[in-house]
Amino acid sequence: MALIVQKYGGTSMGSIERIEKVAERVIRTVKAGNDVVVTVSAMSGETNRLIALANDITNKPSPRELDVIMATGEQVSTALLAIALEKRGQAAVSYAGWQIAIHTDNVHTKARIKSIDDQKIFTQLKRGKVVIVAGFQGVTDHGNITTLGRGGSDTTAVALAAALKAEECQIYTDVDGVYTTDPRIEPKARKLERITFEEMLEMASLGSKVLQIRSVEFAGKYKVPLRVLSSFEEEGQETAGTLISLEEENQVESAIITGIAFSRDEAQINVLDVPDEPGVAYKILGPVGDANINVDMIVQNISVKDKKTDLTFTVPRGDCEQAVEIVQGKLQEIGGGASVSGSPIAKVSLVGVGMRSHSAVASKMFKTLADEGINIRIITTSEIKISVGIDEKYLELAVRSLHDAFELDKPAKVF
Amino acid sequence: MALIVQKYGGTSMGSIERIEKVAERVIRTVKAGNDVVVTVSAMSGETNRLIALANDITNKPSPRELDVIMATGEQVSTALLAIALEKRGQAAVSYAGWQIAIHTDNVHTKARIKSIDDQKIFTQLKRGKVVIVAGFQGVTDHGNITTLGRGGSDTTAVALAAALKAEECQIYTDVDGVYTTDPRIEPKARKLERITFEEMLEMASLGSKVLQIRSVEFAGKYKVPLRVLSSFEEEGQETAGTLISLEEENQVESAIITGIAFSRDEAQINVLDVPDEPGVAYKILGPVGDANINVDMIVQNISVKDKKTDLTFTVPRGDCEQAVEIVQGKLQEIGGGASVSGSPIAKVSLVGVGMRSHSAVASKMFKTLADEGINIRIITTSEIKISVGIDEKYLELAVRSLHDAFELDKPAKVF
Repeated sequence: MALIVQKYGGTSMGSIERIEKVAERVIRTVKAGNDVVVTVSAMSGETNRLIALANDITNKPSPRELDVIMATGEQVSTALLAIALEKRGQAAVSYAGWQIAIHTDNVHTKARIKSIDDQKIFTQLKRGKVVIVAGFQGVTDHGNITTLGRGGSDTTAVALAAALKAEECQIYTDVDGVYTTDPRIEPKARKLERITFEEMLEMASLGSKVLQIRSVEFAGKYKVPLRVLSSFEEEGQETAGTLISLEEENQVESAIITGIAFSRDEAQINVLDVPDEPGVAYKILGPVGDANINVDMIVQNISVKDKKTDLTFTVPRGDCEQAVEIVQGKLQEIGGGASVSGSPIAKVSLVGVGMRSHSAVASKMFKTLADEGINIRIITTSEIKISVGIDEKYLELAVRSLHDAFELDKPAKVF
Repeated sequence: MALIVQKYGGTSMGSIERIEKVAERVIRTVKAGNDVVVTVSAMSGETNRLIALANDITNKPSPRELDVIMATGEQVSTALLAIALEKRGQAAVSYAGWQIAIHTDNVHTKARIKSIDDQKIFTQLKRGKVVIVAGFQGVTDHGNITTLGRGGSDTTAVALAAALKAEECQIYTDVDGVYTTDPRIEPKARKLERITFEEMLEMASLGSKVLQIRSVEFAGKYKVPLRVLSSFEEEGQETAGTLISLEEENQVESAIITGIAFSRDEAQINVLDVPDEPGVAYKILGPVGDANINVDMIVQNISVKDKKTDLTFTVPRGDCEQAVEIVQGKLQEIGGGASVSGSPIAKVSLVGVGMRSHSAVASKMFKTLADEGINIRIITTSEIKISVGIDEKYLELAVRSLHDAFELDKPAKVF
């Protein structure tokens, strides 16, 4: 008998009809011989409705009170699912975060889970009940209600699975798994059977919004096998989704490249003719970071002329203007002759643990883009990722040509 | 510095605009030099919306889970009011029932308050905060969420006032006080400045739906002065509403009759020619009570013929048919020759602590009705009430002629 944690998101809980489907799916999992703990999100649209109520009063509601309001969405979902299970003869019990309890820090609207008590859950599982836990919420040491930030129900599910030492944490959503890239851009995109935590982190942070990043980090840290599945598949038609797990468990599908992530939400900032001396990068990027602007890719050119160099970095597009202003304010301090400009950019990234031992990936990537006449404006690499900044108009072309070149439509092909 | 408990009902919290008005009223009470604890209902319509969600799944949702769902309505209201107060610079903090905690028994959907912890409330009041407590809800010893039944927020307010030894418990609603009778029937109905707990209980249970009966009982038991006020009066136009308090504090307005209550929701059942012997009333009414039918007025005629007598009683109109069937099933057992019939009836009651020492009230009442040609079908009396059953078509006429006869439009006239 295995212990399974299932999480159903807002669209899966989007209507009473959908909740009844979820109940049927939970019961099938129980009948297959499992103990089941379920965590749920608010019905889709409900969290936005609740926030709008607060925002009708002020656009700066107190985070503590906003959490009190938002937490009700998940609370309603848990009880509705319990009722739907009981209607079908399956004993069930719902719990809010404070009832379990799910202990968090005091950072309202983006709290982090510190620990989870497992006693109530195991007691109720032993009584043959399905235990339903409100996602997205917890309670502080002072008994205040907290929420975990958008997508926090994923984190609740993973934290529950870790605390309960569950066999698997199943994230039910409105897509049937993780794809090699966005199928809306590349129709030949293929669903992955498996992906490593590291790869998923790169895919998630680069724009594949299947899972909350923090929940993947958490799952990796506690080695909780995570499976992304669709709650919209009918009984008998269900697929196995995508399993996110440790690298050693991913030997079967040992492709060099696992997927292509991308983001349109980037801007490139060029700082030209800065003195090529120690500390200049810090002088420029320090104030940008101080303004809570997230600097992503950074490249400093090799000095070519008069001990001057160029520094290029990327920031979220919405922060571009502010970042340019900040750097402009520092130009005098940095040294005469320097200039700064910002421009929108798109980022395309190849992700795969297999590239660690295959240096040829980069050259193949660059050649593929060159063959299409796509100019690379910035490059960064990590152990399992190569990212390039390109003109946004080439984004779809770049994704499709790379998907083709690395034959991502075919399973587990070693390049 | 006095401690005031205020309660705002669903219509008072019916929209963001209304909640902002409530915030302003609370701040005026603080500025007048009071510590203020507020308890609120769900926004009007919200509890019904939540119940409908559960009923979309099944018409018999588990009471435990229904409570989990319903309790969210008040939780949202508390935080919205806190946000509206903070926006105006007034420190505030919201608490759900379990956070205070408000301890109840285990009877889901109609739990009773056992005790209230006052520590958190006094700590926050000392910090200069307005404390907002979710009405209508509590928590069991096992940490399960309970609700107190419709109108339970009134009970929460009174229980808080009793636990905190508040100077006054102010119930804000959409009417500006308790009237001598329903102004929709008698436009000359007058708002009462004061009424005793006992009178209010008789008025409430007989159809004046201003306050939940249980909250009045509770207030009387713990001697909490209760004031009914309108939250719809603008600043500067506010009236003092109606104060419900102990009899000795009500000396000022010492009318014989305080008000006229009435109900259309009655049926009269006549059981004719039953043996006039001990136990016959029990044989008839026992089975009716066993079926959870509430028997109100009971009259047994004096035996006049052949040791036979007639028994007449009233029940809620919706239970009339079932009650007649039950008695019919017992006729054989009761004794031959008996017959049973049911018919709709209206009840009109004079209420007033002053009638205790004035036996002439009854005769004046009967004469007034006789002068209008209204036939009295059944009569019962208590220490502070005389009720008569009459044909429904005479209800308005009876109320108006009695209101005139006892000069209830004029304050404090001793008859």
